Amino acid sequence: MKNFIILFFFSTMSFAQNISNTNYISFVNPLIGTQKMGHVFPGVTTPFGMVQLSPETNYMNMFVDQKYNPEAYAYCAGYQYEDNTIFGFAHTHLSGTGHSDLGDFLVMPTTGTLNLEPGQAHLPKSGFHTQFSHQNETAQVGYYKVKLDDYEITAELTASDRVGFHQYTFPQSEQAHIILDMMYSIYNYEDKNVWTFIRVENDSTITGYRQTNGWARTRTEYFAMKFSKPFESYGHKKYDVTPYRGFYRQFNQEENFPEMAGKNIRAYFNFKTEENEKIKIKLALSSVSMQGALLNLETEIPHWDFDKTKLETQSKWNSELSKVEVETLTLAEKENFYTALYHTMLSPILYEDVDGSYRGLDQNIHTSDGFTNYTVFSLWDTYRALHPLFNLIQPKRNNDMIKSMLAHHDQSVHKMLPVWSHYANENWCMIGYHSVSVIADALAKETTNVDINKALQACVNTSSVPYYPGMKQYMEKGYVAEDISGSSVSKTLEYAYDDWCIAQIAKKAGQKEILEEYLNRAENYNKVYDPEIGYMRPKLSDGSWRKNFEPLDTEGQGFIEGNALNYGLYVPQNLDQMISMMGGKDQFSKHLDYIFTTPLEDQYIEKNEDITRDGMIGSYVHGNEPGHHIPYLYNWTNQPWKTQERVRMIMNTMYQNKVDGLCGNDDAGQMSAWYIFSALGFYPVTPGSNDYAIGSPMVQWAVIHLENGKTLKINTVNQSSTAVYVQKITINGIALKGNTITYDALKNGGEIVFYLGSKPKK
Amino acid sequence: MKNFIILFFFSTMSFAQNISNTNYISFVNPLIGTQKMGHVFPGVTTPFGMVQLSPETNYMNMFVDQKYNPEAYAYCAGYQYEDNTIFGFAHTHLSGTGHSDLGDFLVMPTTGTLNLEPGQAHLPKSGFHTQFSHQNETAQVGYYKVKLDDYEITAELTASDRVGFHQYTFPQSEQAHIILDMMYSIYNYEDKNVWTFIRVENDSTITGYRQTNGWARTRTEYFAMKFSKPFESYGHKKYDVTPYRGFYRQFNQEENFPEMAGKNIRAYFNFKTEENEKIKIKLALSSVSMQGALLNLETEIPHWDFDKTKLETQSKWNSELSKVEVETLTLAEKENFYTALYHTMLSPILYEDVDGSYRGLDQNIHTSDGFTNYTVFSLWDTYRALHPLFNLIQPKRNNDMIKSMLAHHDQSVHKMLPVWSHYANENWCMIGYHSVSVIADALAKETTNVDINKALQACVNTSSVPYYPGMKQYMEKGYVAEDISGSSVSKTLEYAYDDWCIAQIAKKAGQKEILEEYLNRAENYNKVYDPEIGYMRPKLSDGSWRKNFEPLDTEGQGFIEGNALNYGLYVPQNLDQMISMMGGKDQFSKHLDYIFTTPLEDQYIEKNEDITRDGMIGSYVHGNEPGHHIPYLYNWTNQPWKTQERVRMIMNTMYQNKVDGLCGNDDAGQMSAWYIFSALGFYPVTPGSNDYAIGSPMVQWAVIHLENGKTLKINTVNQSSTAVYVQKITINGIALKGNTITYDALKNGGEIVFYLGSKPKK
Repeated sequence: MKNFIILFFFSTMSFAQNISNTNYISFVNPLIGTQKMGHVFPGVTTPFGMVQLSPETNYMNMFVDQKYNPEAYAYCAGYQYEDNTIFGFAHTHLSGTGHSDLGDFLVMPTTGTLNLEPGQAHLPKSGFHTQFSHQNETAQVGYYKVKLDDYEITAELTASDRVGFHQYTFPQSEQAHIILDMMYSIYNYEDKNVWTFIRVENDSTITGYRQTNGWARTRTEYFAMKFSKPFESYGHKKYDVTPYRGFYRQFNQEENFPEMAGKNIRAYFNFKTEENEKIKIKLALSSVSMQGALLNLETEIPHWDFDKTKLETQSKWNSELSKVEVETLTLAEKENFYTALYHTMLSPILYEDVDGSYRGLDQNIHTSDGFTNYTVFSLWDTYRALHPLFNLIQPKRNNDMIKSMLAHHDQSVHKMLPVWSHYANENWCMIGYHSVSVIADALAKETTNVDINKALQACVNTSSVPYYPGMKQYMEKGYVAEDISGSSVSKTLEYAYDDWCIAQIAKKAGQKEILEEYLNRAENYNKVYDPEIGYMRPKLSDGSWRKNFEPLDTEGQGFIEGNALNYGLYVPQNLDQMISMMGGKDQFSKHLDYIFTTPLEDQYIEKNEDITRDGMIGSYVHGNEPGHHIPYLYNWTNQPWKTQERVRMIMNTMYQNKVDGLCGNDDAGQMSAWYIFSALGFYPVTPGSNDYAIGSPMVQWAVIHLENGKTLKINTVNQSSTAVYVQKITINGIALKGNTITYDALKNGGEIVFYLGSKPKK
Repeated sequence: MKNFIILFFFSTMSFAQNISNTNYISFVNPLIGTQKMGHVFPGVTTPFGMVQLSPETNYMNMFVDQKYNPEAYAYCAGYQYEDNTIFGFAHTHLSGTGHSDLGDFLVMPTTGTLNLEPGQAHLPKSGFHTQFSHQNETAQVGYYKVKLDDYEITAELTASDRVGFHQYTFPQSEQAHIILDMMYSIYNYEDKNVWTFIRVENDSTITGYRQTNGWARTRTEYFAMKFSKPFESYGHKKYDVTPYRGFYRQFNQEENFPEMAGKNIRAYFNFKTEENEKIKIKLALSSVSMQGALLNLETEIPHWDFDKTKLETQSKWNSELSKVEVETLTLAEKENFYTALYHTMLSPILYEDVDGSYRGLDQNIHTSDGFTNYTVFSLWDTYRALHPLFNLIQPKRNNDMIKSMLAHHDQSVHKMLPVWSHYANENWCMIGYHSVSVIADALAKETTNVDINKALQACVNTSSVPYYPGMKQYMEKGYVAEDISGSSVSKTLEYAYDDWCIAQIAKKAGQKEILEEYLNRAENYNKVYDPEIGYMRPKLSDGSWRKNFEPLDTEGQGFIEGNALNYGLYVPQNLDQMISMMGGKDQFSKHLDYIFTTPLEDQYIEKNEDITRDGMIGSYVHGNEPGHHIPYLYNWTNQPWKTQERVRMIMNTMYQNKVDGLCGNDDAGQMSAWYIFSALGFYPVTPGSNDYAIGSPMVQWAVIHLENGKTLKINTVNQSSTAVYVQKITINGIALKGNTITYDALKNGGEIVFYLGSKPKK
């Protein structure tokens, strides 16, 4: 019998092995999530790369007659899989956001009579756009290829960190063009362009910049662009309406005049091509200057070997992806896993030139001294799981990101850490001041070498700005008053959690007064809990509860992108007390059950762009962040197995291996980071603590190559699609007690084994 | 008898002495030329200073309903003496130009209820502007003072090179304001502002920038501003119409929100003041960054001592003015002289930060290496006499200016030297490529240490750009064809002169081929001379003369800002041949007589903004540049005494000691430089040569302190208002033969004595 048992054991236990020669990029499908709500882009970039070069499938105005155009929302990343039109390839994108911007420097190759109007997507040949078919489309990590049907041009893209590399294979043509459209923007509108500028430096090099207003209010992006072949002629059209033309009127500026400037410009470059002739373009970005962009271009890609850059970039990606090697029950799951892992490395992005200079929040030029500067911090999303994931698999980068946040603070006229750091701008999106969570988490895990006192001061400054929404009242009364500042309950809950993070930093820094003050503030969630109705509830400045309160409605009830039912559970810093306040473990389990099993009525979600049925289970909203910890909360009740079944269910239903497989906006990697953690079997419910809550791993096994050289293995026993219940966990052979794994238990490597079964272990 | 003669001699000969302790600034009246056509500003600056801080007496849109508003022309420098309104004090101005721009960062102190609307000049109390009286106005060199009647505020201004220093003496007020208007511009129009940005760094420091479109198409000016007293509160109003407000909508940005941005903003800062309380403001400029502006501010004026800065600046001016010490017959003439000398040092201006960094024409940031960078080169005007004057009294600065021009060339996408260099822009105003004249003149005088081969190459590049107006045809056919490019005769004449300058450089560089080519091009004036009618005349591309030619008309006849009668004499490089071509000396004298004695009919000037009766003698137009050499041309005939009487007449009538005393736009100092040379008795008819033509000095004596330490004395014998005719000239005691003084005879100092008489020496 003993032999039999051993045999059984081996047959169902998966083995973690080091197989880093595997081509992990083959498991990534950049098209996953490109249809409907995912808002990811299928194009090319390096890990955390500054250039994110991708096709644009529509050319849409965010406002039509000054009114919001709801169709614009679908194009947050510029691409919707259901489209069969391409308008060109732009160099900057946001990955998975629910509001948008960027789309700089749209490049479009065409043939035939020059047409500088983009045309409309639903009208073939109405402009320079082209039809394309997904059959002729290849989207790999670091490589994108598509046939542009209207022009018989094959487009190929790759990129280095700061340079987009285009390769266009033309038919024979006397009239081949490259259009450089300076007017295209994601979330475009009239007056979004502030200024654009182009210099034709020589017959194959151009430089320039554009400034935009928008989500980033004061944004400037510079470029340098080289063609592999001299153009024969060039020109531009200016779409400005201004009475003043100055002495430029002496020139025919429209043709072959090497300096172009205005609000709205489209330039073109003319070629003659042989059959199958390739015209290659390298376009480098810089936040600093055209000079900087040229330096980036010449430093990163001094050659014209497209395949060399492609291979180098894919190799970089393979190195990053192979930091977490996994085996799964199905290929689909493995592709989901690596695509999610890929999505976690599309933001934040590098934001400095090769010489370390970058545009700061103060619009001055700075040099990163002792760190690498990053931007695109969508912190209301990403503090939850993305940065905790970086703490595990990208701690060096996470440390640089924290230093970037501190630089942002130093450059901030408000003396605030980023809320949503956006290309040398603060776009103020969403609520809270969650940089403090990222810092607290890194300090808790000791993965950062920032000066703790400087960091603490930055956190204290950030949490003390009276005009930050609701903050004056919050500091005075301990809660945000709904009559003073909307979404008051969400704000109060998040501020209180953030304050707990600051307290953790103060504790580590030995700053007792700050510790006490912020521990006190961390209790503020109490002040918005109405025990009579058992819900967090908006309170008015006179201390009374707001009347007309509907805890199920996701709009206008004191919450943002959520309702009291879900968002009201946001006390990660003190879950035990919250549960006790809400009636104890058993009642809380029932509350969770209700969430997962009772569909929310349409009337409560229909006004909310960020909440759709696709991302919901019952009333639980996975397609949005405020509930991401909720499936794990059963761990704090007497029914932890319900966490296990729910997270497996969520992984199966909300992350599917298809173009419309993401249930909601990937939100700069947060949704994907949730998946990665959950797939590995644990989740950071309380960033800033040392703890992970136990879930149920989806992988058969995983090997995590930590940056300290240690290896963390995760193995499963009895893994199957039905064996979702954890029977036992051992860490380095010792059985785990409770539902929490600490970071300390993982940081030096070792092995976690999840013993799974088909029935809950009650 | 001998004794008698000696006595007589002493009584009529003026004596040049060194009296450099004289307070020359007291002879400058900055108000001269501030009414009507002078277009100079009465405010404060240092010699060639970057900040030019001056009152604005109207707030005018250059376009009304998209149509040019002719009233705007009067406000090229922001100020018209006849006005009794002040809208505030702006920090950048052009001096004497006939087209305009700038007016950055309008500061206006007010009391009472805040009003952010400027109001209309003709409606008292219709906005924040104020009434003022010239009785309460003091305009000195480096110091301006005025009482702002509506607010009982006394405003005082001074400046260092890069910092404007304001001192406002308030009445007691609970509601005192400083308005910072980011929307005001000279030659303003809707959409002129591209973007503006303000940061309130602390309770008394703000930084920011604005970008404008306009004469300079892509211009950015940064500032840093400190108040001597913390403001109690602040705010701004944004006048933009944009559907997109982003997440800033969460804030009350209008009040006490420290980051403001938009196209059109007016900010205000509130104070409480005691009776006679002074609020001082230091506002520094930078072309580079807000950081740069702060550094400029802190380096140049680290204190709050207004009088100290005023005295330092006035002392700087006295040093510059005392380089040319003169005595005149009347105080009015002396004031005219020093005011003119003052006007020659208001442009070009310094254009770099204290650390040498500056924005280049390529919009990149550069550092001046081995020179000081200047901008505002109005070269069609200033190559004639202003730069030749600098060659004499400011050779070091002129050398820096030439290096600035070469840097401009290096940064130019056209590889052209400046035509009109304008705050990191080329505004392309007027015609020719006269940087080459400035370079040739400095090389002729050996006052520059530029690499001659590099300079020559820059000149050749500049004169070889085929799309520069008419240049392709000029290079092919030897003339600009009127059917291809308007003002074709003016262009041909100026290109030919410029080509002669390039030839002079080539000769000095020993570049024989270039020498020959450009000597050949220098003869091109021949090609537009029609011997049948005896005028320069527009030629068509087929080689025929244009029909319907009217040599007196100043518009549309192949000339710009002039007619064939005057402008057709523009062959400074070969006057003898020109005169011979035109029928010889006697006939040419008659032509000149005709010019000076025959009034031009109204119909020939009425369409021309730059030509008015005020600036005319007969058909001679002194208020504009193309004829500035004409009075001196009698020197090339048999009647040189006519030059002498004409130049004295012009000095007397066209430069008067009153607010409307300038007969035309001072044109960035060219008009004043004409006066300085003429007052000293000679004029550079052919810049690029070593020669000055003889005139008739207005001064009794002059002492020019050359930068090489030598002293050049100019003395007169028999000077009087009627003794305008030169009887004899001695240089260091040796009688001059001919009508030409060479630079070589002056450069090592010595003494020129003009013996004058009341009758021509025929």
